[in-house]
Amino acid sequence: MNAVDLINIKRRAEELTGEQIEEFVEGASGKGNFRDYQLAAMLMAIAINGMTPRETVDLTMSMARSGDMLDLSKIEGIKVDKHSTGGVGDTTTLVLAPIVASCGVKVAKMSGRGLGHTGGTLDKLESIPGLSVSLSEERFIEQVNKISLAVVGQTASLAPADKALYALRDVTATVDSMPLIVSSILSKKIASGADVVVLDVKAGNGATMPTAEKSLELARTMVDIGNLTGRRFEALVTDMSQPLGLNVGNAIEVEEAISILRGDIKGDLMDVSVRLAGEILFCAGVVKSREEARKRVARAIDSGAGLEKLGQMIAWQGGDGRVIDNVRLLPQPVSTLTEKSRSSGYIAKIDTIAIGNAAKALGAGRITKEDDIDPSVGIKMKVRLGDYVSKGDALCDLLIGRTSKTETALAILDGAFEYSDEKPEPASLFYNMISGD
Amino acid sequence: MNAVDLINIKRRAEELTGEQIEEFVEGASGKGNFRDYQLAAMLMAIAINGMTPRETVDLTMSMARSGDMLDLSKIEGIKVDKHSTGGVGDTTTLVLAPIVASCGVKVAKMSGRGLGHTGGTLDKLESIPGLSVSLSEERFIEQVNKISLAVVGQTASLAPADKALYALRDVTATVDSMPLIVSSILSKKIASGADVVVLDVKAGNGATMPTAEKSLELARTMVDIGNLTGRRFEALVTDMSQPLGLNVGNAIEVEEAISILRGDIKGDLMDVSVRLAGEILFCAGVVKSREEARKRVARAIDSGAGLEKLGQMIAWQGGDGRVIDNVRLLPQPVSTLTEKSRSSGYIAKIDTIAIGNAAKALGAGRITKEDDIDPSVGIKMKVRLGDYVSKGDALCDLLIGRTSKTETALAILDGAFEYSDEKPEPASLFYNMISGD
Repeated sequence: MNAVDLINIKRRAEELTGEQIEEFVEGASGKGNFRDYQLAAMLMAIAINGMTPRETVDLTMSMARSGDMLDLSKIEGIKVDKHSTGGVGDTTTLVLAPIVASCGVKVAKMSGRGLGHTGGTLDKLESIPGLSVSLSEERFIEQVNKISLAVVGQTASLAPADKALYALRDVTATVDSMPLIVSSILSKKIASGADVVVLDVKAGNGATMPTAEKSLELARTMVDIGNLTGRRFEALVTDMSQPLGLNVGNAIEVEEAISILRGDIKGDLMDVSVRLAGEILFCAGVVKSREEARKRVARAIDSGAGLEKLGQMIAWQGGDGRVIDNVRLLPQPVSTLTEKSRSSGYIAKIDTIAIGNAAKALGAGRITKEDDIDPSVGIKMKVRLGDYVSKGDALCDLLIGRTSKTETALAILDGAFEYSDEKPEPASLFYNMISGD
Repeated sequence: MNAVDLINIKRRAEELTGEQIEEFVEGASGKGNFRDYQLAAMLMAIAINGMTPRETVDLTMSMARSGDMLDLSKIEGIKVDKHSTGGVGDTTTLVLAPIVASCGVKVAKMSGRGLGHTGGTLDKLESIPGLSVSLSEERFIEQVNKISLAVVGQTASLAPADKALYALRDVTATVDSMPLIVSSILSKKIASGADVVVLDVKAGNGATMPTAEKSLELARTMVDIGNLTGRRFEALVTDMSQPLGLNVGNAIEVEEAISILRGDIKGDLMDVSVRLAGEILFCAGVVKSREEARKRVARAIDSGAGLEKLGQMIAWQGGDGRVIDNVRLLPQPVSTLTEKSRSSGYIAKIDTIAIGNAAKALGAGRITKEDDIDPSVGIKMKVRLGDYVSKGDALCDLLIGRTSKTETALAILDGAFEYSDEKPEPASLFYNMISGD
């Protein structure tokens, strides 16, 4: 069928067959005879007229198959993965992946880089001297078989149709479309080969979804569609109305993950990581109940097994494994500056995106895909929602590097904190759990 | 506002301001920062979510202003124009324009070329030896002032945004959208500068609209929107369930128009042309009633004034004016072949598009914009709907030239006629009249 006839079906809000969706995805991969403007017209028709669950499954699978499908069958046992819709100070992977692996479950994880106001696991890992996230498929599989854990970068050949469509969605006002968001995320997870995927869907002012209802809808849809593909998907909807951890950057997020795995600090980042780790263990079937999962995870921290596993992974990927005992081996900033409160009161609101963007201005993130990042810089939060601060108290520390745009960061932070005279109700850290059962 | 934000407004089915529509149209003219895929996304959002009358007027006016606006103020009196949505054997302009001009009303008409299954007035006129349809604006205005009549080609600078958008609509399944169709047609009419425009909207199996209801809706919308622009618009919805005239081609359509103006033949082509001419006279205000208009038109034929006016126009545009007395001066085909009926019965249905396409295969029309046409070829119909034919009776003559694809034409004609044993009800030639009053 030609492109115009295919577009016309979705324009009339009718259902596309699997074969027709395959033709569209081939077009997006540059194999068919779709031109950019025809892909754009189809994306807009999908964004407005939607897709049935069946269509979304077909779109997901076609996009997954548009490039290499990782064959993890050479890895014994259940392979698990985890995906976050993206947040600030959201370094759960570095906490939960070693915990889960230390419990004997195989974590074969492909991650992305940071773009926009959210950080990326790969950038954080690369702040560890020597560590590489580019492993051959063979080497990746060997590492997971030997130490149950590897975190590597997505190759260019993973779901290339998604890359092309995402680039177009970004410039045609079609980013915010449920079937397009869901198929974009899930296609990469399917192509990465894991049997079990636990999703961390963020809600709150730092999330990519505009409202908590939309976050819940996204979580539900992803679990529904994901399970229809034959893999096991589960989702937690968690709070992102402030940075999840205290540190926002790269080396300093690794540092915070190490502190949690050592049992030195607690807090929201630990709570979410532990809960996600428990869900993964439960979904992978290595524990009988969530209660048992919780205990296994606690033991992995108390015994130091999680931290040891992280050190093992760092060493296997060429990094300096001594960082788990000495975080001073991580890149250090040139200077530090403290942002102080100009008011007194309870912290009622934190503009989470502003915190992410301020860290980006310091050099912790990218403005365009080609930008370099400075692993040493970032922001260390000193307050959380509901804390009382007096005028002059520290709100956060800015860790500054040679290329930091410090003035820009300070301008962004100005107005990122709101105060109230009464102590605000604490936000719930966990909104919903969406299980495929 | 950037392109993505503009697209997003229409994606959410909200109303665009006049300024925002102007930005979109500038983008289509290559002046703004819209890329092709962004224009395509906007077109699809408009096609699905529609436009309010106010938006459609703004789109029409912005498109009209995207190129040269013809200034006809140097022509005294009311300037009239006529537009057909396109049919087969539909040469009303060559009949009505001389009639109207001979009644003293200024006809300053810009026409298009044929594409698809429908013919174009310019191609028909150019079959007259020597005649040119490319006049300078100055020369065009002088001719209308002197003889009240000129029919010329649209310049490339007339509504260039429409050209760009139409090319994109054609390949993104967004041709069939009321606000886009209406603004495309009306923008060119507005830019051409006429005060009064009478529209001939075709209904039936040879029309561009899929159903008579859609044709009526198009007529209504064009009159509503057209009158909101400050010009006077009126529309007739007329039958196109068979070729309007007997001849389908170029020189032979000129020949048929001459025969009608001389009073030699009657029929549907004459009836529609006469009715349209009357409406133009009435809308231009030169007659008090439609009855008076009808009489003035009849007199223009009976007196030979219409035919004389056509000869005058041909001569002014460099053509051989003697053709009005001797149609053998028009290009003649190399040979003629008669298609005969293989059944007996009443003609119950004629596939009008097939007749148009068969004529095109003979060389009367274009498959791509760059194709040359053969002015001498075409099809002379021998039957009309409801006629009784016996097996072996002539259905039509094929007028063949050196480059005619005669086999293709015959294959297309095969099955273009349907028969029944009972005499079918005659179709109405006039469906509706939509007046702006």
